Amino acid sequence: MSADSRWLAAAAALSARARPLSRPNPGVGAILVRDGKVVARGWTHEGGRPHAEAIALAEAGEDARGATLYVTLEPCAHKSERGPACADLVSTSGLARVVIGCMDPDPRTSGAGMARIHEAGITVEFIASEACEESLAGYLMTKRSGRPEVTLKLALSLDGCIAMSSGESQWITGPEARAHTHAMRAKADAILVGGGTLRADAPRLDVRLPGLEERSPARWVLTSSTAPEGWQALPSPEAIHDMAGIQYLFVEGGASAASAFLRAGLVDRLLIYRAPILVGGRPGLGDYGLTSLGAAHGQWRIRERRQLGSDTLEVYTAEVATGSKSARAPTV
Amino acid sequence: MSADSRWLAAAAALSARARPLSRPNPGVGAILVRDGKVVARGWTHEGGRPHAEAIALAEAGEDARGATLYVTLEPCAHKSERGPACADLVSTSGLARVVIGCMDPDPRTSGAGMARIHEAGITVEFIASEACEESLAGYLMTKRSGRPEVTLKLALSLDGCIAMSSGESQWITGPEARAHTHAMRAKADAILVGGGTLRADAPRLDVRLPGLEERSPARWVLTSSTAPEGWQALPSPEAIHDMAGIQYLFVEGGASAASAFLRAGLVDRLLIYRAPILVGGRPGLGDYGLTSLGAAHGQWRIRERRQLGSDTLEVYTAEVATGSKSARAPTV
Repeated sequence: MSADSRWLAAAAALSARARPLSRPNPGVGAILVRDGKVVARGWTHEGGRPHAEAIALAEAGEDARGATLYVTLEPCAHKSERGPACADLVSTSGLARVVIGCMDPDPRTSGAGMARIHEAGITVEFIASEACEESLAGYLMTKRSGRPEVTLKLALSLDGCIAMSSGESQWITGPEARAHTHAMRAKADAILVGGGTLRADAPRLDVRLPGLEERSPARWVLTSSTAPEGWQALPSPEAIHDMAGIQYLFVEGGASAASAFLRAGLVDRLLIYRAPILVGGRPGLGDYGLTSLGAAHGQWRIRERRQLGSDTLEVYTAEVATGSKSARAPTV
Repeated sequence: MSADSRWLAAAAALSARARPLSRPNPGVGAILVRDGKVVARGWTHEGGRPHAEAIALAEAGEDARGATLYVTLEPCAHKSERGPACADLVSTSGLARVVIGCMDPDPRTSGAGMARIHEAGITVEFIASEACEESLAGYLMTKRSGRPEVTLKLALSLDGCIAMSSGESQWITGPEARAHTHAMRAKADAILVGGGTLRADAPRLDVRLPGLEERSPARWVLTSSTAPEGWQALPSPEAIHDMAGIQYLFVEGGASAASAFLRAGLVDRLLIYRAPILVGGRPGLGDYGLTSLGAAHGQWRIRERRQLGSDTLEVYTAEVATGSKSARAPTV
């Protein structure tokens, strides 16, 4: 990995601080570097303003002269009532160089932000960065495919159960895994469960972590009827295309909701919390329309494995472009 | 870990070469050490003779004088038509010291082997070694509990399935995992499947690895009726107490057989080959009589995790003494 790619990955890591409060804007990260040292940093603030570049440039002041700006997303080129275009700010900053990890699929900026910086006489480069792409997954998905990025969470026993046959489901996983789930909720814009799970378990689906109680995302239920108070109804997985302003959707089950999203080809990430127990009860996943075992292979790539108490968390991302996944191909 | 414990663990690793061809004798490992260097090694040969100690002492010759013998199991004290008692061989060997990793539960030797060596004026110590205990698991189980050690193998998808709803089961795991299973078969004395699996899949259950084709173990089927030609019938899991000469039993499924052995509390080791696929089909395990989720926890301890191609192997051992497991408490 080149030094430029490492700085972009650092900017991507920094941008995690922006998520999810930057909504409806993308959570961007920016790092200003001169002589191999960090001069200033910035990430998109609550509600989307100020932008990451604006914060970093303001922090740097005169130190921006001759520096390199690493930014996860192409600086915006369109003016807004809420603030100046970052491409204009960058153009008058005295920067020597700008490195961009992701082109912006927003047609108002796409290519235009980069062009404006180039016209200002600043060296500007796009270096494709997987880390930046991942850090903006929800934003990119909404722009490219018109829907949120979908994470499916499964909390399973070794034999793939989410409950005993009796329905007893508390608890499969331990307190560390459950706390981790709450932290994941806090990074989502919306959480969804199936109608059966809502009726059976009446889950709170809130964030119960000290200091993050206010981060509980909007609650949705997959149902063809109406939702109870405090909940919104999603009639089908495909209806996520109508979820305005939602970049990150966290699907928590049960088995029917999980199967429905997989059947629709609308799961991008898989979080599997695995407890070292055998249950012999209710499976975490129902028939999702798999036509052959061969077709099941090569769909999921493991990205992370970590121990959470006695449980193991595995994170997988969808590997193959199927259905709406093909819309992930870069449009810039 | 002390130096003595490390030498015992080395002897235990060496004893893997004895398994399973040493049957009906235990697969013992022995290392002769002098001045921190290995002088000679031995492991129980095919059919049980010569014993590990006899081989190591013969190899060492005069170099045995003043050396320390590390041996996984207490040297035998009883005479046999097939060879001398190892305790006698050891007593006249000129050894300075003998370190034993496991006491022999066989009443003909238990304590007597150690006593005879002590009487010969040789320092003799028992240093309890988990590695030695594990290397002799099958032998110790037959002596202590009158049954073989039982390994349950499950080849599962992420969601715990062994097949699609249609019954299609080839393949869940990849070639590396399947080759590993064949190697595990080659270390067993007997393999068992359920009656339904035998009728549905007609598995060969043989060892298809170059050079190990002759190592295919005896084939058993869990059935209350008669077994087909080439197979032996086991009427119930509890009937493993009547499996004469079988130290290691490898249970390969299907779900009913797995559940039956778990229900009987007769699974000592769990091998889970996990493929990174979602199936939404037939679960690998049925109801095995679990009374509460709380009771499911704390039963299995992970001992090993390794990657096999795109699959993951996890090895668990039964953690808690339940049912016949309580008979595992040392009897020496």
